[in-house]
Amino acid sequence: MRIDRLMLLAPTLALAVAITATAAELRGTGDLGVVVERADGALLIVDTTERRMIDRVEGLGDLSHASVVFSRDARYAFVFGRDGGLSRVDLLTAEVTHRIVQAGNSIGGAISQDGSVVAVANYEPGGVRFFATADLTPLGEIAATYGPDGARSKVVGLEDLPNNRFVFSLYDADAIWTARLDKDGPTVTGRFVDVGALPYDALVTPDGRHYIAGLFGEDGMALLDLWDPAAEPLRILDGYGRGEEPLPVYKMPHLKGWSVAGDLVFLPAIGRHELLVVEKAGWKEVGRVAVHSQPVFAIARPDGRQVWVNFAHPDNNVVQVIDVPSLAVVADFDLGPGVLHMEFTPKGEAVWISVRDDDRIDIIDTETFEHVGSLEAAKPSGIFFTARAHRLGY
Amino acid sequence: MRIDRLMLLAPTLALAVAITATAAELRGTGDLGVVVERADGALLIVDTTERRMIDRVEGLGDLSHASVVFSRDARYAFVFGRDGGLSRVDLLTAEVTHRIVQAGNSIGGAISQDGSVVAVANYEPGGVRFFATADLTPLGEIAATYGPDGARSKVVGLEDLPNNRFVFSLYDADAIWTARLDKDGPTVTGRFVDVGALPYDALVTPDGRHYIAGLFGEDGMALLDLWDPAAEPLRILDGYGRGEEPLPVYKMPHLKGWSVAGDLVFLPAIGRHELLVVEKAGWKEVGRVAVHSQPVFAIARPDGRQVWVNFAHPDNNVVQVIDVPSLAVVADFDLGPGVLHMEFTPKGEAVWISVRDDDRIDIIDTETFEHVGSLEAAKPSGIFFTARAHRLGY
Repeated sequence: MRIDRLMLLAPTLALAVAITATAAELRGTGDLGVVVERADGALLIVDTTERRMIDRVEGLGDLSHASVVFSRDARYAFVFGRDGGLSRVDLLTAEVTHRIVQAGNSIGGAISQDGSVVAVANYEPGGVRFFATADLTPLGEIAATYGPDGARSKVVGLEDLPNNRFVFSLYDADAIWTARLDKDGPTVTGRFVDVGALPYDALVTPDGRHYIAGLFGEDGMALLDLWDPAAEPLRILDGYGRGEEPLPVYKMPHLKGWSVAGDLVFLPAIGRHELLVVEKAGWKEVGRVAVHSQPVFAIARPDGRQVWVNFAHPDNNVVQVIDVPSLAVVADFDLGPGVLHMEFTPKGEAVWISVRDDDRIDIIDTETFEHVGSLEAAKPSGIFFTARAHRLGY
Repeated sequence: MRIDRLMLLAPTLALAVAITATAAELRGTGDLGVVVERADGALLIVDTTERRMIDRVEGLGDLSHASVVFSRDARYAFVFGRDGGLSRVDLLTAEVTHRIVQAGNSIGGAISQDGSVVAVANYEPGGVRFFATADLTPLGEIAATYGPDGARSKVVGLEDLPNNRFVFSLYDADAIWTARLDKDGPTVTGRFVDVGALPYDALVTPDGRHYIAGLFGEDGMALLDLWDPAAEPLRILDGYGRGEEPLPVYKMPHLKGWSVAGDLVFLPAIGRHELLVVEKAGWKEVGRVAVHSQPVFAIARPDGRQVWVNFAHPDNNVVQVIDVPSLAVVADFDLGPGVLHMEFTPKGEAVWISVRDDDRIDIIDTETFEHVGSLEAAKPSGIFFTARAHRLGY
């Protein structure tokens, strides 16, 4: 396996932490999760059955825009920091078992289908780096070079796929690549070029078949059918962000927040106070839902019956619930300023919502819309539950 | 809460077992599972990451046709025996923490969305009984009575639904009911009558929206749209089992084995050497796939790209794989006599297959079709992995 010079130059820091198993409680890990306390570089470890915090882990670096994936045994959280930090946290002992700073600036990552490899999408230097989930040993990289000078592209929208592959977008190269880690190291398995200008984020549908990249440089999206090895990237939803008259955009919506609810996809119309309703068969817009303000996340309850929406500043105190069959807004919450993220329990009976400026997590029953619990958290942002370990594209 | 006299008469046996936590290994439970050894009344506890058996649990009674659900923390398996036994097994300590014999003859069960209640479908006496997942304390029952004499119906096809409900079929009453457990005890929330003659098994789609019951007394199926509280049961797929000329039926196919793969549903054509391909939108047959013999289970890989099929005696040595986009048979295995069940790892990179008469579990890579592992097991039948804890209708 060849390791690039740039990779060796990246600063790495290994923390040797003894696991004191005797101190930890024997327990199942299927109902665990983490809450990111971005200002403190810390994680809360939470229990979604008892709706309580069970421990806290510090020393995780810059967690603004941090995201998390889980090992296939649902014991370890892999935390991607904005500062290029990659940390492996044991949810049972509340310890950082391994931590490296693998790049200067990174934007998230994914875990392979078989659970053996964690991949990180980097801005500086660009490209994707691969590490063993067991101990964060480097396993190589894909530099994501493009153009005559072989510049490295920023990489975004990195997702895991069936057949142990990954897919990601090259922001600077208007390209989408797929890759896998073989015994000889990382291999690019597909290169799709001219997908549209500046893909800035992406998602994969729950079945791992369709990859959709948002385009920062154009008013449309790139769609790839990954079941077809000869597929050309398709352009979909041209003009979806524009509407009749563009509004100022306070925050680009997250594509990971897109909802696939049965046969429909709900997505934020950029800058507008609307969700677009798109039919998955054909990828055409079939309707719009008027909502409170500019949507940021629109997330389906696991059964697809409801879509929960939060909003950009200055309306980020509000959460609305859309009933999918009627497309009606059936609930409207004012939870306080700074609603940043929402995560459903695995079977969807409750949703956990981070309210940053009130230093609080709210837990709401998704049937009755009653408030069923709260947790204190210091400026909470992302919430991630271990059931993600068993889902493609999380 | 009112507890029926018949319930108090049911023989119960509580096993007090001390949990010796110190002996058990601290570990995640997201990659655990169980294999039923039906002849021995035993379970193997298995690890799907290391592909090995980690422990064995005995004393579970008659496990012919046994099924298993998991607690929401993925630590406990609830085992439904044919003899009415309900056992709670700790996967970490390999101990039976609680066991009752709650009826004379039962056919499976389900766990509520919030994980607090386990429900059992009974033949003798008929009806559904509810128990606390924490300790199997009885929480009441629904007697499922019908007709002028108030006879109790055999209950089949019991599944969990969103909003903490359950749905089940009354075999003797040609009916489908929904129910939930409130603080005052079990409540019937919906009664659908004249659904068709003798519903014998059922499934719920992965989104918890559609419930489909097979009819033993007619050549068709009953479909209920659970999103519509005023829904009438629909009759679908009339004549699906007949084809041009009926063949002898060696084994009624399992409906739980039905595959929902994207927009298509694959189901065994009763008595014929075919799978029916049904479009979910409209529930109409859109094609057939010729297969080796009479299919029993047709199970989709979690991403819906493949459907794996096993067959009735005397062809139960064979497993075939259908590629969904081309509807072609792309792999054909002869694994030895008595292939009874197949279970995919949570993200589908491998499938575990029980080969009863060879006392073996085979593990096959679903991309390369290579044989990647084997485990010894005494007459193995059902295989169940803990990721089911986080899925509706499992």
